[in-house]
Amino acid sequence: MLKYLTAGESHGPQITAIVQGIPAGLPLGKEFIDRELARRQGGYGRGGRMKIERDQVVINAGVRAGEALGSPIALIIANRDWVNWQRVMFSGPEADISSPLVRPRPGHADLAGGLKYNHHDLRNVLERASARETAARVAVGAVCKQLLSAFNIQALSWVVEIGSVKTQRRQLPTEELFRQAESSPVRCPDPEASKQMMALIDKANETGDTLGGVFEVIVVNPPVGLGSFEQWDSKLDGRLAQGLMSIQAIKGVEVGVGFRGSRMFGSQVHDAIAYSEGKRRFYRLGNHAGGIEGGITNGENIVLRAAMKPIPTLRRPLSSVDITTKEEVEASYERSDICAVPAAAVIGEAVVAYEIARSMCEKFGGDSLEEMRRNYAAYLKQISEY
Amino acid sequence: MLKYLTAGESHGPQITAIVQGIPAGLPLGKEFIDRELARRQGGYGRGGRMKIERDQVVINAGVRAGEALGSPIALIIANRDWVNWQRVMFSGPEADISSPLVRPRPGHADLAGGLKYNHHDLRNVLERASARETAARVAVGAVCKQLLSAFNIQALSWVVEIGSVKTQRRQLPTEELFRQAESSPVRCPDPEASKQMMALIDKANETGDTLGGVFEVIVVNPPVGLGSFEQWDSKLDGRLAQGLMSIQAIKGVEVGVGFRGSRMFGSQVHDAIAYSEGKRRFYRLGNHAGGIEGGITNGENIVLRAAMKPIPTLRRPLSSVDITTKEEVEASYERSDICAVPAAAVIGEAVVAYEIARSMCEKFGGDSLEEMRRNYAAYLKQISEY
Amino acid sequence: MLKYLTAGESHGPQITAIVQGIPAGLPLGKEFIDRELARRQGGYGRGGRMKIERDQVVINAGVRAGEALGSPIALIIANRDWVNWQRVMFSGPEADISSPLVRPRPGHADLAGGLKYNHHDLRNVLERASARETAARVAVGAVCKQLLSAFNIQALSWVVEIGSVKTQRRQLPTEELFRQAESSPVRCPDPEASKQMMALIDKANETGDTLGGVFEVIVVNPPVGLGSFEQWDSKLDGRLAQGLMSIQAIKGVEVGVGFRGSRMFGSQVHDAIAYSEGKRRFYRLGNHAGGIEGGITNGENIVLRAAMKPIPTLRRPLSSVDITTKEEVEASYERSDICAVPAAAVIGEAVVAYEIARSMCEKFGGDSLEEMRRNYAAYLKQISEY
Amino acid sequence: MLKYLTAGESHGPQITAIVQGIPAGLPLGKEFIDRELARRQGGYGRGGRMKIERDQVVINAGVRAGEALGSPIALIIANRDWVNWQRVMFSGPEADISSPLVRPRPGHADLAGGLKYNHHDLRNVLERASARETAARVAVGAVCKQLLSAFNIQALSWVVEIGSVKTQRRQLPTEELFRQAESSPVRCPDPEASKQMMALIDKANETGDTLGGVFEVIVVNPPVGLGSFEQWDSKLDGRLAQGLMSIQAIKGVEVGVGFRGSRMFGSQVHDAIAYSEGKRRFYRLGNHAGGIEGGITNGENIVLRAAMKPIPTLRRPLSSVDITTKEEVEASYERSDICAVPAAAVIGEAVVAYEIARSMCEKFGGDSLEEMRRNYAAYLKQISEY
Repeated sequence: MLKYLTAGESHGPQITAIVQGIPAGLPLGKEFIDRELARRQGGYGRGGRMKIERDQVVINAGVRAGEALGSPIALIIANRDWVNWQRVMFSGPEADISSPLVRPRPGHADLAGGLKYNHHDLRNVLERASARETAARVAVGAVCKQLLSAFNIQALSWVVEIGSVKTQRRQLPTEELFRQAESSPVRCPDPEASKQMMALIDKANETGDTLGGVFEVIVVNPPVGLGSFEQWDSKLDGRLAQGLMSIQAIKGVEVGVGFRGSRMFGSQVHDAIAYSEGKRRFYRLGNHAGGIEGGITNGENIVLRAAMKPIPTLRRPLSSVDITTKEEVEASYERSDICAVPAAAVIGEAVVAYEIARSMCEKFGGDSLEEMRRNYAAYLKQISEY
Repeated sequence: MLKYLTAGESHGPQITAIVQGIPAGLPLGKEFIDRELARRQGGYGRGGRMKIERDQVVINAGVRAGEALGSPIALIIANRDWVNWQRVMFSGPEADISSPLVRPRPGHADLAGGLKYNHHDLRNVLERASARETAARVAVGAVCKQLLSAFNIQALSWVVEIGSVKTQRRQLPTEELFRQAESSPVRCPDPEASKQMMALIDKANETGDTLGGVFEVIVVNPPVGLGSFEQWDSKLDGRLAQGLMSIQAIKGVEVGVGFRGSRMFGSQVHDAIAYSEGKRRFYRLGNHAGGIEGGITNGENIVLRAAMKPIPTLRRPLSSVDITTKEEVEASYERSDICAVPAAAVIGEAVVAYEIARSMCEKFGGDSLEEMRRNYAAYLKQISEY
Repeated sequence: MLKYLTAGESHGPQITAIVQGIPAGLPLGKEFIDRELARRQGGYGRGGRMKIERDQVVINAGVRAGEALGSPIALIIANRDWVNWQRVMFSGPEADISSPLVRPRPGHADLAGGLKYNHHDLRNVLERASARETAARVAVGAVCKQLLSAFNIQALSWVVEIGSVKTQRRQLPTEELFRQAESSPVRCPDPEASKQMMALIDKANETGDTLGGVFEVIVVNPPVGLGSFEQWDSKLDGRLAQGLMSIQAIKGVEVGVGFRGSRMFGSQVHDAIAYSEGKRRFYRLGNHAGGIEGGITNGENIVLRAAMKPIPTLRRPLSSVDITTKEEVEASYERSDICAVPAAAVIGEAVVAYEIARSMCEKFGGDSLEEMRRNYAAYLKQISEY
Repeated sequence: MLKYLTAGESHGPQITAIVQGIPAGLPLGKEFIDRELARRQGGYGRGGRMKIERDQVVINAGVRAGEALGSPIALIIANRDWVNWQRVMFSGPEADISSPLVRPRPGHADLAGGLKYNHHDLRNVLERASARETAARVAVGAVCKQLLSAFNIQALSWVVEIGSVKTQRRQLPTEELFRQAESSPVRCPDPEASKQMMALIDKANETGDTLGGVFEVIVVNPPVGLGSFEQWDSKLDGRLAQGLMSIQAIKGVEVGVGFRGSRMFGSQVHDAIAYSEGKRRFYRLGNHAGGIEGGITNGENIVLRAAMKPIPTLRRPLSSVDITTKEEVEASYERSDICAVPAAAVIGEAVVAYEIARSMCEKFGGDSLEEMRRNYAAYLKQISEY
């Protein structure tokens, strides 16, 4: 069973992840993980912190000589800012807790978390609730991507909306759209929309405001039959929705045509089945389903979309209440971004890569990459003879 | 740990569910579960099967003298149609499998499931992938609702869109909207929209077409602090999204303002924190967040929305391929609905009730209802003194 | 993932189990399950109830035409005694609860369960804590045995001690010992010891006393490499120990030489590795390890042993306390057995078969039996070329 | 839900653990964890490595100012020997893998692991299968002990057998036995037996042989009602057995009288129930059950016993086979201990403390220590009024 746990506060010494279930023999490199971490830190509209942190992973277990051992993989990402915070965030009793945060920020876990955990210093809440935690998820996702790449499966993303600016959908190959997204400062595969998005970010910056948006994640080349309708929690669409919705600030998730499809007639929305001799065999005349029918992959690309709310930490703070005095105050301000949708898209790739890798491991088993590949190849052969 | 498994084919003898983790002493009645099952079967636009099935639960374990024992609860719902299907669906080798289904229906698991499980009779796929399984989820949800009602928490739903018809959002109390939805044939708390929706369903019926739509589920009176940002999979919004997306035909999920919020500025979207003496104490000036911030409840009502695609079984069938001959054919037709959005809303209540009940059990523990209520009351007192 | 839940009270209408994760296409028959249920009900020294109950399974989901569908399997075992108990055990409020059990039996969950769940009628505890629940585990185990038999793996048991009577260890093939056990009224593969055991049971019966004992479960022909040392809870020996210790009345579990091995020197206890050309290749010169090293199978037979305490319900009751009056009383007496070690051995086979089947599914994946067998065969080939 | 994952190779840079579910506000100190790590490293009969490693924990997440935050706790234990191994064990492709281990050691996972993971350098197996991993479990257990100590619950251990030397059972208070064990070089609370055990270890050392033994873990002051008979895998005895059996080299586990009890009559083995006014109320006239009846605690101390096989790495190596040449060879020798039973006893405390803490969290819930204690106190009051 592929699974993982993460730990780490935003201003603690490091972010830690343990990933379990990666087959032995998988080539795994720090370089690829670091590249993914850098992709997460990019994007127009990021705040000052992104300049401080240049995340680098250290692989501290589970990998030897560039290959997975089959044992749990420990990934460590140091927080460069730690030097400035160790007095305040130290684990021992000598930590300086003399300046508690008492002005909760709307849109964050601050107040609800303080009440839940009975914390009277809201720093004890926001440190873990922070999106800094997603660095660990991107590192885990990078490991999963390396597993998927052994099966020629990829998870790609781009931004389709920032605030009120929408991309025009263009008929280009997925790889080409991805290439354009990679070279856009806002991960948008549409140069014209990219410019408008950046202008909107500039405007928000001027007014002390923030922006959200919408991104897409596409899984290219998934096999038919991942996930299962056996039980409610084995359905792949449910798992993918959980993964995406669990990313900080995500408030909406769609598969395929999503909400738009609910406004169409059945005859317009379902993807007719066709057949051709040769490699392709069964295929679809469209992909409104987004590659998932009945909770399992149908062999078409998986198409997912997620909506991110605007960053809730505003330089022009919202109205709040001091938890000690109960007086009306301005919410506290921690250095933050104007817009993090491009980063969220990269995080989206990571959580999707994890779920696809998990469903691959469940279906194909295998303790070594050889074994998993052998099982996979035999299944593809079975499919091709169905 | 509250959890459950279900089993049962659409035309098998029965649907079975086992629910584990309900505290001892909870009053549990068959009547309430049956009422919920009936609500699931209602709605304008349902097909003939809904007239055959009048679901009734039998509680076969875990309840004695009207109260939960603390042991697992077994719920059985007989399939009334079984008498007509037992020859075909019998578990023993004498079953009649001489008429395999070979024309997969687009929009269903038929083809992908056949390939995955190597089934050459697609009946072996569609029987479990069918939404008949949601009867079990509604029964389980009814048990969870009875638990929640001991804490004065409710999960309510209504339909906001069917096809191209949208409800106008009206400023009425939640309970009043719910009451209106309950008396609408399409669960829509807007009499004018209800009429238009029914007219659209009639039109689809005439053309052999189908419709989808959008429903909302509101959790009324949740305590602050359910769910956790401790780990990616402990976040309540992620879990709720999984639950909703795992319902058959759901392709989109939103929390609070959802996709709409991603098009607004941060200053417009976050809910300012206010305070008043007395019972209410900390509260919000709005609820764009839909009651969840940082993956945990903030004490406001939880607001969820789900998009259902049109029913994929069309009387005017889509184009498909015979899996044996590989020739182009019309997809097979199983008796089906025109529109099942009202039913899906009731199922949505059930899966949401389960997730809320699960998070309640995690936070408050307790083997008996007395114990759980005592823990809950003491927590509310803690909150009121924060 | 192979997993299951069970529900059902000892005197309720039925015992229910849902098993998930069995691959599609596995031949599954009611006959085999019923035979296993009958084996559980046999044995010299059983009480009157065993004559009332002649367990028969009904397969209500997950199997069609004698083959698993790949969907969850529902197994129902009716309690024949239910007709005599429905007034008392009914799920509705009209149940007769006028005669609460208030004299807890030492050695049972009665008192501790009453305190835990705040039950003041101890019937509400003992009904679920009862070993009647093991009928469900034997049914689930029978399904797992059918899966294992597709891979030529078997779980066999016999009794080695009852009370003070011990079997002499005899050098016979496993299958022969099993055959002898099957024909012994006390499942003991030693005719002389069998007689002594039966005499001891007679003696205990005369004095109103009870007996425990020790049984062995052998897994024949497991592949090398089941389980994992990846994480503490993936080790196969730990899982097997949990399974066996979770059987009612089991107080001790051993793998291989167990406690005896801890009194030997290292040079005496470890199994030297040898090699021969041909089918066998790597093998051991002994099997003190009981087939498991480092938490994984080493290819030798798995050897497990479990100690059962004497049945705690005595016709000559133990001293107890009335939970209402707090006065010293004799513990209540529910019809019971003198000795159930032979039955426990059959239950032991079942829980072991489940754990082995689970580890097989984890390692080999596969949605259909064809797929799982193909993966298995390819792995055996890999092993044979190592 | 309390849970944890560990990662780390025996000669890798560090051992890592992430523990999730510890309530906020729990005082947690590095000092106590380090003391537990030192206890694990002690004991007469340890090899050279124990002199190299002086384990120290670094808490890298989840704790601030000496208190748990409620977020996951990351624990890091550096391997001091890493400096000597980094060339061989490095995670990058430049690692030196030129000297593969090819002579598997009987009694270890070496051969079975090599076959399972398709590793041809057995170092890739033994590094994770090694008992070095138990350092992480002791650290996790130390965190759990700190949680338990907030409820005045303790997990204590001592050694009762080493090789053929047995302790005489003495009627002393548990705390006094523990104190004597702590000051014995072999953790044996019997000075005379301690001397004999040390002499036996000396003898084994001379002959290049190794020893195993038996230890006990006692849980002092557990509340009644931990664990559950609801489902097979919720039974506390099963979970404790899994925990203990999953410790490297453990081959037998007993609860209470264990195997000995299976040889007694029922009238001798069950613990009569008595009652006295005042604080004690319901209690037992004996503790043959070892504190667990029906899978749940009955309020008496929990008594567990585990059998450890002799260390399988012998200076006078066992016969093995070269996995490359298939020739008969002597097994390879890695520096090792003569006897590690005292260390295993400390590890036993840790795994038991984890399981008890887990069942406490399940029953009492709570996000903060205040909340958990409040729930606990109210339950004890309920019990006292039953």
